[in-house]
Amino acid sequence: MTSDLDSLRVVLVATRNPLNIGAAARAMSNFGVRRLRVVNPYEKAFREARSAVGAAGLLAKAEQYDSVAEAVADCRLVVGTTAVGRRDLQHRLLGLVEGGRQIRRQLSLAPVALLFGSERYGLSNDELSHCHWLMRIPTREEHGSMNLGQAVAVCLYELVRGRKTAPAKTAAVKKEKTSATSREVERLTQAMLKVLHDSGYIKPRAVAAEEKLRRLVRRMELNSNDAEVWLGMLRQIAWKVAANEKNDR
Amino acid sequence: MTSDLDSLRVVLVATRNPLNIGAAARAMSNFGVRRLRVVNPYEKAFREARSAVGAAGLLAKAEQYDSVAEAVADCRLVVGTTAVGRRDLQHRLLGLVEGGRQIRRQLSLAPVALLFGSERYGLSNDELSHCHWLMRIPTREEHGSMNLGQAVAVCLYELVRGRKTAPAKTAAVKKEKTSATSREVERLTQAMLKVLHDSGYIKPRAVAAEEKLRRLVRRMELNSNDAEVWLGMLRQIAWKVAANEKNDR
Repeated sequence: MTSDLDSLRVVLVATRNPLNIGAAARAMSNFGVRRLRVVNPYEKAFREARSAVGAAGLLAKAEQYDSVAEAVADCRLVVGTTAVGRRDLQHRLLGLVEGGRQIRRQLSLAPVALLFGSERYGLSNDELSHCHWLMRIPTREEHGSMNLGQAVAVCLYELVRGRKTAPAKTAAVKKEKTSATSREVERLTQAMLKVLHDSGYIKPRAVAAEEKLRRLVRRMELNSNDAEVWLGMLRQIAWKVAANEKNDR
Repeated sequence: MTSDLDSLRVVLVATRNPLNIGAAARAMSNFGVRRLRVVNPYEKAFREARSAVGAAGLLAKAEQYDSVAEAVADCRLVVGTTAVGRRDLQHRLLGLVEGGRQIRRQLSLAPVALLFGSERYGLSNDELSHCHWLMRIPTREEHGSMNLGQAVAVCLYELVRGRKTAPAKTAAVKKEKTSATSREVERLTQAMLKVLHDSGYIKPRAVAAEEKLRRLVRRMELNSNDAEVWLGMLRQIAWKVAANEKNDR
């Protein structure tokens, strides 16, 4: 049976504990989600998880990546999960019910990545910068941080729970332009970064400039066509700016 | 803070794995449920769970019983949880959403017990016989059996999700940023237009280039802050490109 849930990729970033990878896989199997991706897991943890019982097929097919960028490259919506109470969020933060609704809507159109950070630190600012928005589970402020396997289970439950009441696909939704993939958006980010460096807007050792720019570009929520137009414009500008650099020398 | 959730008793029956007792306690703490009861746990499991980190206070106060009857004695509603697919159910079986609704209604009146069976066998017929009705999480038929800690997390999430009380403090939720004014967006459009002309992307007498660009920039749906950042970047780029123009002449 295929369903919209086949468009969902659960992405575990820098997971340390094999039990948590196994638990995430088990919850996925319970709720009918098949595509697991791991980014830089502790090698031993991933090996051990793969040999665990319960969700062997799913874990055997899990895909391993070296970076978040690669793991989400084919996704048109990237959602990070986070505990409450982070003081420094640069992203739009949605509750699980509203976030789940938006994810379900997108799943019928294109791949969606749902990111879970490491047990100890969650998602880093760099990892978060690949996300379009963040979603939080309504835990208590005093103890917001959930066990990883439980967080995965609750998020997937919410996606499954809401499915039956989800409105039928409407023609209007179908007509929506296809969102740009993360690969397209990242290409644009890098082109922009180059122009900003070459033009002197970003100082050589500027801290966090790339993260800030990545978030800024994601907030544009570009469709594929527009992403291509922007990239074309930036390349022309980059060429001109670089030519100037040469003249200056 | 007291709430209706103080009337909820989570009852773990014959749990074998200390990690699962710990995980159940952690989920309870996450969602603000305080009363944990254990019935005939493996002694070693309960001892180990109590010494685990994370939800120490809650586990230290956990009450231990020798029978389900004693553990639910003060409760006016007793609900069992079960995996799908049991062939011999004598009970009314409710989905999690509807079951959660009924539990919430009762919680405002009197104590409610929510029972979770052992990892291997679930709740026995004898244990089930203490229940008014059963509730199931909407897992797949092919793989219905959930990890205990995850099942507890999902059930408690459903109880919290549907609560009608005032929403938790949303200090962490950033107010949606104010959308950019048309003036701001147009200023950005003009800056972009200049860079594109100067860099040769837009040919001198290109028809409709400005309109296309205007629509493109509007589709970014910028907020005021971002519009300002983009304008700053473009001005720096424009300066660099224009400097080049001069060198060319």
